[in-house]
Parts: sequence; C-alpha cells; structure tokens
Amino acid sequence: MASGVEEVRNKQVILKDYVSGNPKESDMYVTTSSIKLKVPQGSKALLLKNLYLSCDPYLRIRMDRIQGSNVFTSFTPGSPLSGFGVAKVLDSGHPEFKEEPEQFFKIHHTDVPLSYYTGLLGMPGMTAFAGFHEVCSPKKGDRVFISAAAGAVGQLVGQFAKLMGCYVVGSVGSKEKVDLLKNKLGFDEAFNYKEEKDLDAALKRHFPEGIDIYFENVGGKMLDAVLLNMRPHGQISVCGLISHYNLNQPQGFSNLMSLIYNRIRMEGFAVFDYFHLYPNFLDMVLPYIREGKIVYLEDITQGLESAPAALVGLFSGRNVGKQVVLVSHE
Amino acid sequence: MASGVEEVRNKQVILKDYVSGNPKESDMYVTTSSIKLKVPQGSKALLLKNLYLSCDPYLRIRMDRIQGSNVFTSFTPGSPLSGFGVAKVLDSGHPEFKEEPEQFFKIHHTDVPLSYYTGLLGMPGMTAFAGFHEVCSPKKGDRVFISAAAGAVGQLVGQFAKLMGCYVVGSVGSKEKVDLLKNKLGFDEAFNYKEEKDLDAALKRHFPEGIDIYFENVGGKMLDAVLLNMRPHGQISVCGLISHYNLNQPQGFSNLMSLIYNRIRMEGFAVFDYFHLYPNFLDMVLPYIREGKIVYLEDITQGLESAPAALVGLFSGRNVGKQVVLVSHE
Repeated sequence: MASGVEEVRNKQVILKDYVSGNPKESDMYVTTSSIKLKVPQGSKALLLKNLYLSCDPYLRIRMDRIQGSNVFTSFTPGSPLSGFGVAKVLDSGHPEFKEEPEQFFKIHHTDVPLSYYTGLLGMPGMTAFAGFHEVCSPKKGDRVFISAAAGAVGQLVGQFAKLMGCYVVGSVGSKEKVDLLKNKLGFDEAFNYKEEKDLDAALKRHFPEGIDIYFENVGGKMLDAVLLNMRPHGQISVCGLISHYNLNQPQGFSNLMSLIYNRIRMEGFAVFDYFHLYPNFLDMVLPYIREGKIVYLEDITQGLESAPAALVGLFSGRNVGKQVVLVSHE
Repeated sequence: MASGVEEVRNKQVILKDYVSGNPKESDMYVTTSSIKLKVPQGSKALLLKNLYLSCDPYLRIRMDRIQGSNVFTSFTPGSPLSGFGVAKVLDSGHPEFKEEPEQFFKIHHTDVPLSYYTGLLGMPGMTAFAGFHEVCSPKKGDRVFISAAAGAVGQLVGQFAKLMGCYVVGSVGSKEKVDLLKNKLGFDEAFNYKEEKDLDAALKRHFPEGIDIYFENVGGKMLDAVLLNMRPHGQISVCGLISHYNLNQPQGFSNLMSLIYNRIRMEGFAVFDYFHLYPNFLDMVLPYIREGKIVYLEDITQGLESAPAALVGLFSGRNVGKQVVLVSHE
C-alpha cells in the first residue's frame, strides 16, 4: 500500500475450455488475485463490488463455440465468465454515467430486495415481459402453457398471464415445484414432466381444447408434444431451448406439420431488443410487487466458490426459482 | 335413356387405402361408371364437367390418416380423391350460386388460359400471394430464398419478389429447372440441391449476407441449412413441408437455436384463411399476366388415367411447373 490505495482479494470464475455436452463444475475453476480499489486517474471506468450474481441458462451457450449468432458471443477459455449482477460502485472516473440497461444501470428503487435486480427486475423479468406481452398477443381467457415454469422467467410469465385473466399451466421437474406453482405462484395447474410417460397425453389432460400460447423454455420432446396440442393461430414464443444447449446430436421432431395444420407462429426473440421498454416494465411491475400481487422465488447460494455448482445445477433443475449467487451483502 | 336424360361415362380416381411413406400409383385406381346429365328436380346441386384438374402436394397429406389438423381432412379409402379444378356447369338447380372461392367460383376472365385457374389464378396463386405478401413483410432489396422454386407456388413467389425489387434465389431438383428459373422466370440465381453436397455452403454462396425471407416448401435438411443462414429478424413462411409428408420417422434438426440466435419468425399458414383477398389478388395479377410480366410454367398431362402418375410424380419432382391434368378441352 505504498501508493496509499487499498488492495483487496478479487475472485474470478474462469472457464477452462469450451464445453461440449452437459456442463460440469470441473469446466470452471475459481482463482484469487488482488485488485486496487481505485480506477486509474483520467479513466472513465467504474470499479464495482459484486453483491449478487445471476446464474442463467444462456451462460451455457456462451461456454460453447458459438456459430451463426449475433445475439451471443463465446466466452474465452482461460478468462472469467461474465454475466448480469447487482454491484456497488466503489470508485468511478465517470462523472455521471449514462444509463444503459444492457451494460450498467443505476438502481433507483431500493425498497425491494436488491437480488431482484438479477431476476424479477433484471434480465429475466424483462425476458418474461417481452416474450409474453411483446412477442405474443395475449388476451383474457387465453390458454397459456409454460415449460420450466418455476425458473427465473417461467414463474413470471405465469403470473403475468394470470394477471391478464388467462388459464395457466406450467411444467416443472419435481413435485415440490408443482406445489409451488399451484399454491404460491397462482398457476391454475402444473405437472411434473418427469412423471409423465406421455407428454402429449399430459397436455391433452390440461388443455382439452388446446393451447393458445406456449412460452418455450426447453425445446426437445416437450416442443414436439406441444406442437400436437396448439390451437389454430396459436403462438409459440421461443425464449430458450435448454434441452438443446447440451446436445451434440440433432433433435428429431415429428410434428412440425402442425405449423401448417394449425397456422402456428413460432418466434424467437432476444431480450436485448426490448431493453428500451425497461421503464415501462418497472412502471407495471413495481406496484404489483409492493401490493404482493407478484411473488418471486429465489434460490440463493453463498459465495463465489458456489457459482460453478449453481450454474451447472440449472441443467438438472436443482434450483427452485431464480438461481442467484450472493457474493456480499453490501 | 327411358327418362330422356342423357347418360355418360364418369371416371373417378379412387384411393385404395391410407398411404404410408412414398405414394405409389398403385395406391389409386381409376373406375368408370355412368352418370345422368341432369341434377335431381328441386335440388340446388351443380352438375359439372371437369376440364382441368389440379395435382397438388397437399393431396398426399389427405391420403394419410390425419391427426391434429383443422385445415385438412383425410380422404376415405374406397372413395374418389377430390381437389381443385376447372369445370363447366352442365346443369344447375342453383338459380345463381353465391361465389365461394373455397368451394366454387365463377370464372369471369376467360382471356387467359383456363388451366391457369388451377395454378396461377387458383389455389397455388393465392398461396404464393398470401404466403409472401401477407405472412411476410417483404420490402425492396430483401434477400429471398424459395425452395421447390419451379413448382406451382414457388415460381410465383419468385416472380412476386422480383416485381418488388428483391434479390431472389431458388432451389430446384434438376439442371433444366435451374435454367428455367434463371432464363424464363427472372430469378437472380438458382441451384440444383441434388448436386450440392453441403446445403449450408450452397446457401452461403448465394447469400453471403444471409436470407431475409425464406419461403418454405420442403422442410427437412433444407430447413435445417436455411436456419443457419437467416439474417436477424428473418421470416420463414411455412407453406409446405413436402419432404415430411412421406416420413414415418421424425426428422432431426440441429439448428433450431437459430430461432433465438437470429430472432426468427417462422409461421405456418393455410391459404383458406386468405380467400377473401382473391379479388385483390386478381386485380394485381391479371394486368401482369396480360403485360407478360408474369409467366407461368405448366406441366399438363392428358386424361384422368394419367392423374395417379402425375400426383405421384410431384414427390420425385418429375413435373416441371404446375402439374395439371387435362380431362377435356371443353
């Protein structure tokens, strides 16, 4: 501390090499180095202390060699993973940095849990909002199906749909999550896909008249079964295809003809295209949170060392609700 | 002829049994019976003499046991196939039947070949119009790719796109068709998919900057390759999936992630939903025909006996242009 500037330990989660197949904890390692608590003079950089980090399935995509995307770029082996999070500004050379939701934005409303800004009030919340309200045209009475419905995004889509007066069913991977959806999140029905031998039959049981809107988080066999159960002019909002991220083999589909049979619109979207709507989103959602009309399930692990396991756990559905890593309370 | 009513021979193409896999001529047979040339007294029926019959790939779908469609119904084994055609009214109990494009409509413009009403001015023409102009939002300069581009629908989509100032490439199954597309139909480029070992590379050659609009007639490997080459916010109009009609096994797709990577909208449609636009379509297309700005390739076989072979030939691409069966000149 010859320079009079405090130096502290800084931990990072490093990607070992590009990942193929299911991600494993050993694909990452945690390093500790040190960092000076001051930005270089004249720089407009921000020095941040991470409080909460967001574990999201899309990070798996970035751990791969990505081809043909202008949405995602690959991480670099040997370098730290980066993602969304809530951080405190410790030092700043930037007089008054412009709000840019995609990169940094200032948190104005602190009467809600700060961790919500990695989920409900962050990228996953905007994803649910854009993918449901902007990509689809939901209306009262619509029959809405959501896969990965207890996840960071799915649990919100279900609640947004209920607030609109839709009939809402979610699929999840455990009995515990079924109970949460029905008893805590207000879904009309829910089922555990792992206990269903015939996904088509499960969907027909819950949607005897078919599905108007499918919010797609998983792909694979669920998508194939949903295609058989869409109502005419149904809409499929393709938010994620988590079952494809780890695939080395092509996924076989039998029911693509349904696109024609039922005049289905299937649309992929990227939340980044909708960040300009973030103020509208906050106006809508903050009152709901304060009135208790929206609840949000979080699964918070402690310490950056727990991040690799938390990230890997997303792909086996270990998390219940939004997976957050608590780095520091303040 | 005791009743004084003339009786004539009436031929029918009968479906033997539901078809699985590739359709064969032997899946159908032609019968001859007789019919009285008068509608029963008091009936509002129409007695028609077929002049031109339309061979369309969707008939294959109707030869199967169909599940989950509100667009198509199955044919009945032992009963005749039905479809679109141009017919002459021989007798009618209907004082002035209402124009209903989906069932019957009166032909007012007879300065163009009557056979065109099975193609350019019939269901395929409306399909091209709706699938390109209504399902997509084409604009000048868009890069448009069309599969099965020498077919009844594809050749028109290409010409509509050229009239809008788009860059247009088609894929077909023979060198002869490549020449027709480039030299007769005004496509910018065309290629024979059977001669391309790597469809992705073929598309990259013709669309180094990617595809804005894909007019989908075939599905399968072509769709998978196209998904790798779509531009951001590209549109896929799903008109047909001819490579799927004969499949008993699921088709494997590798590149569904492109829906998200490139925010793709993929939409199936049914021409029946757009028949109310038929007058607008005629207003647009008739002047083009008369001015020679749209040409139309027809492949006309003679006699109802040739219908089973003509229908089966659609699936090996034997036809060059719209497949028509000429039953009678008048």
